[in-house]
Amino acid sequence: MPAIQNIKVAVDAVVFGYTSKEGLSVLLIKRNIKPFKDSWALPGGLVRDDESLEEAIQRELKEETGVNINYLEQLYSFGKPGRDPRNRVISITYYGLVKPDAFELQADTDAADVAWFNIKKLPQLAFDHHEILTAAHERLKNKMLYQPVGFELLEEKFPFSELEKLYMAVLDRPIDRRNFKKKVIKFGFLEETTEKQALDGAGRPGNLFKFNPQKYYQLQKEGINFEI
Amino acid sequence: MPAIQNIKVAVDAVVFGYTSKEGLSVLLIKRNIKPFKDSWALPGGLVRDDESLEEAIQRELKEETGVNINYLEQLYSFGKPGRDPRNRVISITYYGLVKPDAFELQADTDAADVAWFNIKKLPQLAFDHHEILTAAHERLKNKMLYQPVGFELLEEKFPFSELEKLYMAVLDRPIDRRNFKKKVIKFGFLEETTEKQALDGAGRPGNLFKFNPQKYYQLQKEGINFEI
Repeated sequence: MPAIQNIKVAVDAVVFGYTSKEGLSVLLIKRNIKPFKDSWALPGGLVRDDESLEEAIQRELKEETGVNINYLEQLYSFGKPGRDPRNRVISITYYGLVKPDAFELQADTDAADVAWFNIKKLPQLAFDHHEILTAAHERLKNKMLYQPVGFELLEEKFPFSELEKLYMAVLDRPIDRRNFKKKVIKFGFLEETTEKQALDGAGRPGNLFKFNPQKYYQLQKEGINFEI
Repeated sequence: MPAIQNIKVAVDAVVFGYTSKEGLSVLLIKRNIKPFKDSWALPGGLVRDDESLEEAIQRELKEETGVNINYLEQLYSFGKPGRDPRNRVISITYYGLVKPDAFELQADTDAADVAWFNIKKLPQLAFDHHEILTAAHERLKNKMLYQPVGFELLEEKFPFSELEKLYMAVLDRPIDRRNFKKKVIKFGFLEETTEKQALDGAGRPGNLFKFNPQKYYQLQKEGINFEI
C-alpha cells in the first residue's frame, strides 16, 4: 500500500437540456484558468473533504453556472493517469436531463462564461470531456428505452408529436411512430385528453395528451422494455 | 477550491462465482488489519498513482485472493464521508461473474483468509460492503435481462435445465420456464445438439445444448430485451 497517495477527486456533470424548439443541448462552461484556459468544459471541480459526492456536484453546478439541479445520476468514474496534465485527478461523473428555460445561467468566479450548446454543434472540449459527454449521451439513450422520460420536460398538455420529437432528439434517430404510440398508450404513463391542439395552418387538430404522474413514477421505478 | 484535499481513492470488487452445484457465491477476504480486523470484506485497496483504476482492481484481486480476473465492469463510486472510520476514502467499485473452479484461492499479506461465500449465507461485512454487494447483485440481475450470460460458466454441452438454474440462481426467483426456453431459442445464442443427456435415474433424456459463440457475443454487444 503506497504511503502517500497523490490523487485528487473531482466531480463533473453532463447536464442535458431539452426543449422542443432547440432539441437536445448540453450545459458547458468556459474555463478561465489553465490548463485549457478559454476552452469549453463540463462544469465540475474538486470534492471537499466534508461533502458527499452528490453535494459536491450540486455545489459546483451552482457555483459555475448558477443552476440548482437537485437530481443527477452517477454515470461513471474516469481515472486514467494523465487525463489531467497537472496531476492525477479521478473524475466521478454525473448526468441529468432538464428543461433549460427553468434556469438563469450565471458564470461565477470559476468560469468565464456559461452556455447551452446544441448537441450537434459542440465546441472542442477540455480534458477528456468529450469522451465523458459521449458516455453520458449513450447512457441517456439507453435509459429512455427502459424508463419513461419527459414529464418534467414537456408542457402540461401537448400534442403527441411533442413526445415523439423528444425521443427522436435524444435517441438521435427516427422512430417507428405507429409502434411508438401504441407502446406509450399501452404502458399507460400518457393519457389522451379531450382538448384539441390549436393549429396554425390547415389540417385536422389532434387531441392533446398529458402524463399520468402516478403511472409515470411507478414505471420509472419498475422499469419498462421500450423497444422502439 | 480547497488547497489540500484529504481524500483517498480505493477500488473494491464484487466477484460473483457460479457453479450449478453451489449456485451464486461471492469472493470475500478476511481482514488482518484494523479497522474491522477479522471481519470479512470485499477484496480491494488504494489505487497507486501510476496505474489505471482497472489495473488497480486487478492487482488488488491478485494480491489479496490469488485470482486473475481480466474483465470486470465498473459498478458505482461510493463516497459518503464517514464510510471509513480512519479517513475519507472514496471507493470505485467493480463487479463480475466467474466460474469459481477456475481459481486457486490464496490469501496474501493483506488478508488473513479468502473464501467463496454462498450469497444466501453471507457473514457480517466490514465498512459499507454489504451495501456495495447488494448494489452489485441488483446490477447483475438487471444485466441478465438485457445481455446473454452463461457462456463462460456452463460446460461446453449441458441440459437446458442448467441454463434455467443459472438464471434462477442469479435472479433469486423462479422463472416462467416455457417462456424462458422459447425466448432463448428465438434469440439464437443457444443451439440444441443431437446428443442426449446421460441420466442417473429413469425418465426420458433430453438433448444437450451448447452456446453459439458468434451469436452470443453479437447479442452481448447489441443487447436484448429478456423479459422473463
